[in-house]
Amino acid sequence: MGKMRIDIISAVPQLLESPLNHSIVKRAQEKGLVEIFIHNLHDYSYDKRRNVDDYAFGFSAGMVLKVEPIDRVISKLKQERHYDEIIYTSPDGEMFNQKMANQLSLFQNIIILCGHYKGVDQRVRDHLITREISVGDYVLTGGELPAAIMTDAIVRLLPGAIGDETSALFDSFQDNLLAPPVYTRPADFKGWKVPDVLLSGHEANIQQWLHEQSVERTRKQRPDLLKE
Amino acid sequence: MGKMRIDIISAVPQLLESPLNHSIVKRAQEKGLVEIFIHNLHDYSYDKRRNVDDYAFGFSAGMVLKVEPIDRVISKLKQERHYDEIIYTSPDGEMFNQKMANQLSLFQNIIILCGHYKGVDQRVRDHLITREISVGDYVLTGGELPAAIMTDAIVRLLPGAIGDETSALFDSFQDNLLAPPVYTRPADFKGWKVPDVLLSGHEANIQQWLHEQSVERTRKQRPDLLKE
Repeated sequence: MGKMRIDIISAVPQLLESPLNHSIVKRAQEKGLVEIFIHNLHDYSYDKRRNVDDYAFGFSAGMVLKVEPIDRVISKLKQERHYDEIIYTSPDGEMFNQKMANQLSLFQNIIILCGHYKGVDQRVRDHLITREISVGDYVLTGGELPAAIMTDAIVRLLPGAIGDETSALFDSFQDNLLAPPVYTRPADFKGWKVPDVLLSGHEANIQQWLHEQSVERTRKQRPDLLKE
Repeated sequence: MGKMRIDIISAVPQLLESPLNHSIVKRAQEKGLVEIFIHNLHDYSYDKRRNVDDYAFGFSAGMVLKVEPIDRVISKLKQERHYDEIIYTSPDGEMFNQKMANQLSLFQNIIILCGHYKGVDQRVRDHLITREISVGDYVLTGGELPAAIMTDAIVRLLPGAIGDETSALFDSFQDNLLAPPVYTRPADFKGWKVPDVLLSGHEANIQQWLHEQSVERTRKQRPDLLKE
């Protein structure tokens, strides 16, 4: 299987620059694990002023992204290759979670269309999109941060993306458990001490303690995860 | 009441550049509605190499942000002014939603500490943080995107932040309803047509249709919202 490809379509592509060009997402691209392309919606407007939005029909609710430029960029990409999903980021979509990140990380090619202003013309959602995904129950300026969130969550799961291979094993949600507490040096800071067991060097006790802490934390803060 | 102040503490502050310097968040700063300060954790390390992380005690799980630099920057900020909340972004925190964004937007000063790598030393969470918030059930490279999400969701609620004052009224979640579908020109694109009612000019019918669409969409996609 070739490397994964993520195409992100945005009316404000500048918003995506720094999240995709640093840290693990940057290194994963350099390592050849993923290709990420940002498409500026304004490049697909035939309008003289490269407009991509217009007033909503029927009520004054702010600006709406037009169907034409979006249809053009998606049609062009689909002619070039097969896409497994064409995703629209929207607060009324299916809720993004770690399981979905795992699934999406197995795909070859995906498109993420970022909404902006009051969203996109409904015909885009009805005819061009295969999946609507929300990153949470809150309203944002646009879909760029959600697209960056999805990309980050997916890319770090690609084999080889995280340097320390073992480190994803203790991530929250991987076994429907929250991660255990972590501590580093110094062992005593202003009288705030690291639990003795972690300094004991007794591997079995440490593993047991970590597991107990994970379960305890999950029970207290997210009992819903234990029922899944 | 003065303008809101948001202090964001990060080990990888470059990640925050573009999300906070474009679009509505940028304009809100220019309009004087909010001041946003980014603090580079490395500036608070007394270490020769400006290290801010170290190995986890007891198990190999990747790197952990140290308590000392974080204690230094938070202590300095707290000496300068009162903070309403000192927030840590973590997947095991309280779930961020629109209601919480509304509450936080009423505060004067908040700190957001971004986790990175495997998270922060637990003593930071036990002694320095007042609130732990998650933006969703997924694992990310760091807390920078969640901090950008929270900032965006909060700032756009500040009075005057959104140009078109009415536009937030049709946001999803504001009445526990999802937003209605929106359409813009052309009325007919490749045979995909805008619903007649939106072109009718009949204000009462349009309002009724929009409300029905909101309720219908919420019932289908997010029945849980109607029960709240």
